[in-house]
Amino acid sequence: MSAHTGRSSAVTVVGLGPMGRALAAAFLAAGVPTTVWNRTPGRDADLVAAGARAAASAGEAVAASPLTVVCVVNYDASDAVLREEAVTAALKGRTLVNLSADTPGRARDTAEWAARHGVRYLDGAIMTPAPTIGTDDAVFLHSGPEELYEEHRPVLAALGGTHTHLGEDPGRAAAYDIALLDIFWTAMAGYVHALALARAEGVTGAELAPFAQGIAAILPPLFTEFAADTDAGTYSGAINPITSAVSTMTHVVHAAEAQGIDASLMRVIEGQARRVVARGHGSDGYSRVADVITGR
Amino acid sequence: MSAHTGRSSAVTVVGLGPMGRALAAAFLAAGVPTTVWNRTPGRDADLVAAGARAAASAGEAVAASPLTVVCVVNYDASDAVLREEAVTAALKGRTLVNLSADTPGRARDTAEWAARHGVRYLDGAIMTPAPTIGTDDAVFLHSGPEELYEEHRPVLAALGGTHTHLGEDPGRAAAYDIALLDIFWTAMAGYVHALALARAEGVTGAELAPFAQGIAAILPPLFTEFAADTDAGTYSGAINPITSAVSTMTHVVHAAEAQGIDASLMRVIEGQARRVVARGHGSDGYSRVADVITGR
Ligand SMILES: NC(=O)c1ccc[n+]([C@@H]2O[C@H](COP(=O)([O-])OP(=O)(O)OC[C@H]3O[C@@H](n4cnc5c(N)ncnc54)[C@H](OP(=O)(O)O)[C@@H]3O)[C@@H](O)[C@H]2O)c1
Ligand SMILES: NC(=O)c1ccc[n+]([C@@H]2O[C@H](COP(=O)([O-])OP(=O)(O)OC[C@H]3O[C@@H](n4cnc5c(N)ncnc54)[C@H](OP(=O)(O)O)[C@@H]3O)[C@@H](O)[C@H]2O)c1
Repeated sequence: MSAHTGRSSAVTVVGLGPMGRALAAAFLAAGVPTTVWNRTPGRDADLVAAGARAAASAGEAVAASPLTVVCVVNYDASDAVLREEAVTAALKGRTLVNLSADTPGRARDTAEWAARHGVRYLDGAIMTPAPTIGTDDAVFLHSGPEELYEEHRPVLAALGGTHTHLGEDPGRAAAYDIALLDIFWTAMAGYVHALALARAEGVTGAELAPFAQGIAAILPPLFTEFAADTDAGTYSGAINPITSAVSTMTHVVHAAEAQGIDASLMRVIEGQARRVVARGHGSDGYSRVADVITGR
Repeated sequence: MSAHTGRSSAVTVVGLGPMGRALAAAFLAAGVPTTVWNRTPGRDADLVAAGARAAASAGEAVAASPLTVVCVVNYDASDAVLREEAVTAALKGRTLVNLSADTPGRARDTAEWAARHGVRYLDGAIMTPAPTIGTDDAVFLHSGPEELYEEHRPVLAALGGTHTHLGEDPGRAAAYDIALLDIFWTAMAGYVHALALARAEGVTGAELAPFAQGIAAILPPLFTEFAADTDAGTYSGAINPITSAVSTMTHVVHAAEAQGIDASLMRVIEGQARRVVARGHGSDGYSRVADVITGR
């Protein structure tokens, strides 16, 4: 019985980039028998030292376990590995969880491919950096058949953190993922730009960072407020009208360009906000921009 | 003596938008004799009810107190009020604190104008929303002569929160301000875009918001790390190489445009990151973008 449990919870990890390696390490740390494979050899030495079995091919890797977790750069990459005849054949009747990032459309397309080939399929997304894997801070999103998710939930729990099943539509995890990546990369782009601008003004990163933490601290309540605004279609500008916002955006553009720093990002942001003002919504709040970018 | 203290700590607030009104209300709540004026009349009724004195003109307003705090939309607006002959004359020998937002250049220009006209001048910036004024959460930045700042610090303390004097260069508060506004508005732009994208994918703001809070929670340590990277000129991509980042940016662009949503913001972000990869720095971290946008 314990041998059976061991076998049924064995896992294969395909893809040994920073994230795939973190996933494999967490499975191993939890005592889950783990087989690993990566397109480019030589990424598995420390995992093998920690007890992983190194497969000689992707087909051999997926055949080694009832569950394969794939985590490569995107779905072009996972297709390149999985849609090879021997690999697809070996996956038949087994479960595939694709934790690579891509669009909802690609996730749905992969679910269809899996169904055509008798592969049991769950789609997922990882919302936190590799070092969080195996800790309470990790955040995983899943979508696809609920029963299949429940079946593999115990072994996925070895990855730590919180796991949320978002629904049966296989594209749903990717829909959350792209929206959250949109928030993440846009925020990071703004921060890197601010560091460059501060540097040009003689302010170091170390000097700016504590105040940047202050900005990060005011975002959460505004996120809640803006979500409610968008859901309700109300855009209160009582506290900060978009006419006032536009003016400060212009300052950023002018100050950056006066220092020879590319301000195309803030030019786009300012332009969207000016279109809200031009449409007669200048006393609304900034969240009204959601309509402009949607073409409403 | 108490009457003298009362007089020397009296304050005039010029500009009664959401922020100017919050400043005046905080001074009144702290028992500071407060005179108010706004270009458009009729914004002062509740402040007068709370004990403010309403001035009939800007000149009368600044003449009423040893310290005037101006908080209007930008320095075009503060110039329109302050560089009027009667107002400039009334300011002579008094202290002016400009808490309107604008560029470092405009702040320095205003300091020169003030020096030419015998006006004692401090520049400042407010980094938190109007409802924080008078609470511990308010954040004020100041720059200009240290002695002058120390002289008015007690009355400015009535505004609550933390006050930081950043140095004698009058443009320094504005330099921090534009960098922090850059972070703030870019983050908000990404969030509003994500809300629009999620909505198009059938995900409500209420559903997305808890996960968006999770993204907000991972920003502070990354802010510290990226600041250190930029100061040191090291851009480690060990945890998340920019080639991986670029791929997820592309997903956001494709998913948005597949839904008819303007993705010009993420197109700019993706383009900057692709230039880093094209220059042969694909295994570096995202913070390397700081060099691309600075033209290094
Ligand atoms: N790193 C993080 O902190 C983090 C956080 C959240 C989500 N994610 C997501 O997790 C996924 C993996 O990320 P990562 O950090 O491990 O690094 P990555 O650079 O996104 O992916 C590297 C992996 O993709 C493989 N790969 C790339 N092209 C391939 C192809 N055509 N065929 C087969 N394999 C290919 C690489 O194999 P080779 O070694 O052979 O090149 C390597 O295993 C990505 O979708 C990423 O967005 C990462
Ligand atoms: N609201 C916030 O949460 C917040 C947070 C941080 C910083 N700030 C900064 O605080 C400053 C004031 O912001 P606010 O929120 O009060 O609203 P605002 O819309 O930026 O400014 C409104 C004020 O500017 C005045 N004004 C505009 N053009 C003028 C002109 N040509 N001549 C004279 N007065 C003019 C308005 O007078 P009328 O009533 O006559 O139009 C009103 O008093 C801005 O620089 C803003 O960036 C605001």
